[in-house]
Amino acid sequence: MVTTAVMGAGSWGTAFSIVVADAGNEVRLWGRREELCEVINRTHENPDYLPGIQLPETVVASHDEAEILRDAQVVVLAVPSQQLRENLTRWAPMLRDDAVLVSLMKGVELGTHKRMTEVIAEITGAGPERIAVVTGPNLAKEIARREPAASVVACEDAGVAGFLQKWCHTESFRPYTNTDVIGSELSGATKNVIALAVGVCDGLGYGDNSKASVITRGLAETTRLGVRMGADPMTFAGLAGLGDLVATCSSPLSRNRTFGQKLGEGMSAAQVAEQTRQVAEGAKSCTSIAELASLHGVDMPIVEHVRTLVNDEMTPDELVAALISREAKPEIR
Amino acid sequence: MVTTAVMGAGSWGTAFSIVVADAGNEVRLWGRREELCEVINRTHENPDYLPGIQLPETVVASHDEAEILRDAQVVVLAVPSQQLRENLTRWAPMLRDDAVLVSLMKGVELGTHKRMTEVIAEITGAGPERIAVVTGPNLAKEIARREPAASVVACEDAGVAGFLQKWCHTESFRPYTNTDVIGSELSGATKNVIALAVGVCDGLGYGDNSKASVITRGLAETTRLGVRMGADPMTFAGLAGLGDLVATCSSPLSRNRTFGQKLGEGMSAAQVAEQTRQVAEGAKSCTSIAELASLHGVDMPIVEHVRTLVNDEMTPDELVAALISREAKPEIR
Repeated sequence: MVTTAVMGAGSWGTAFSIVVADAGNEVRLWGRREELCEVINRTHENPDYLPGIQLPETVVASHDEAEILRDAQVVVLAVPSQQLRENLTRWAPMLRDDAVLVSLMKGVELGTHKRMTEVIAEITGAGPERIAVVTGPNLAKEIARREPAASVVACEDAGVAGFLQKWCHTESFRPYTNTDVIGSELSGATKNVIALAVGVCDGLGYGDNSKASVITRGLAETTRLGVRMGADPMTFAGLAGLGDLVATCSSPLSRNRTFGQKLGEGMSAAQVAEQTRQVAEGAKSCTSIAELASLHGVDMPIVEHVRTLVNDEMTPDELVAALISREAKPEIR
Repeated sequence: MVTTAVMGAGSWGTAFSIVVADAGNEVRLWGRREELCEVINRTHENPDYLPGIQLPETVVASHDEAEILRDAQVVVLAVPSQQLRENLTRWAPMLRDDAVLVSLMKGVELGTHKRMTEVIAEITGAGPERIAVVTGPNLAKEIARREPAASVVACEDAGVAGFLQKWCHTESFRPYTNTDVIGSELSGATKNVIALAVGVCDGLGYGDNSKASVITRGLAETTRLGVRMGADPMTFAGLAGLGDLVATCSSPLSRNRTFGQKLGEGMSAAQVAEQTRQVAEGAKSCTSIAELASLHGVDMPIVEHVRTLVNDEMTPDELVAALISREAKPEIR
């Protein structure tokens, strides 16, 4: 049994709390809003994010950060990517010196281009043996319903990865270890942009070939960037890369795919944002990923085209035509 | 302009004829039934396999094998996998000595465990520089409608692959070259089995995580077999592997996915075969792929479980549970 703090009671933080509790651990779930924590403890349900799903009694919600973090051997970070720095700066002094920090977040920090584990290392001073990532084809609602799924636990220290694997292995949730943190994390951050491009194909009325082509070539360009950054190319073919991308692109619930679909149907990014009252993650991170690619001298045509489309500098038809009719090349470079 | 023979007027042979004609070549399309050839030449449509699709006038159908093959610089083989040997034995003496033979077929010969290009080499005596494969996310109806798609042209001789790439590159069809014939071919043959397993998840009512997990782990075990057989692991992450698998698993039209879905809903393989009046390719090739894996000493749990399920030795629930709750492992081995 591992005393675990899950920092963030959104849908994925809450769903992952169920996994960790099912695996036999005591889980403290931190919520920003005190009243939500009270409802969770009274009803064993998170009505805002996972209505209708019963939480195990071993998941206890709290608004008290210091109390939760004091004993936590593992601290799971599940706040929005762009709010990690602010939150973690406040939490860092409350952490145990040996706490393992697990990121569930999928994003690249705007401005700094830092991956979430880089932000964690910078703020807490923790070494790579105390920083890990859980990622993969993990749509929160399905995990919460205990539907079978596989996932990746990535840590540079294989021993710690193995420890975390046991910590969250249940009958329905099967974690695989990986020591490639960069690849695991970059996959998650880029998939939102690729999902947006797949949505554009949907919006234009194209079928499964076109979408599969964009998924495959999108993963290929993500791999190129990852390899340049020091990742293992096989990570992108695995659950963190391919698995997560396919799950997101298949799901009718994906905000990024839906955002792209509306662009494909002819709306501007501003119009979609106004109608849905939010900007999809991929519509923001296309800029930071395109900048990362440029910094590393890597050609990422799909990300670059999404960035151009989101900025109204290209039509959806031009995007797809440009992707297909580019100069013919060998597939593997 | 390359004089091309397309041997087989089924949906994929006919759709690919459109691609080759669009790319500026003269295409002779061989059909087994003389009356279908007459209809195609009179109406420029193949009503049996691609109703409503207009064929270019440069596609001319014929029942006369010798006439078609006499001048053909490129011969495209598009007959059912298990009928290749018989047909090609008859055609071999009619081929030009320098004709390039391109396989569109996705299967492994029952009994011999030979890939289609191995059968081609055995029967014609052609060297690897005259044998190629076209494969990828290529649902025939979408290709025929000229929706954008990417594909792979694989030949051990990079120069010949480049020649074939130009031969079939159009505004909507983008071929990439690859010299890994084994990987390209094995991907196509195995994806039907994986698609069947994905269908089982559908039939059981599982969501996108479970299906993405099966797709990813299915591709991982295909890669393991491929590497043992001498393939490049990156091929499986590309259009021939991932791309084709994702297109097939996404398509509501896939016979293999649908077959698996009915198994997942509780029907036996015999009942599904009776209802649909056919046995899906994956329900047959799971046996030959499982035998190939065994010959090469490779663990392929998804293929093996599909084989067991098709033979009524396991229930669908047991299949999915077995896939998820196996002993925890590192992802990349």
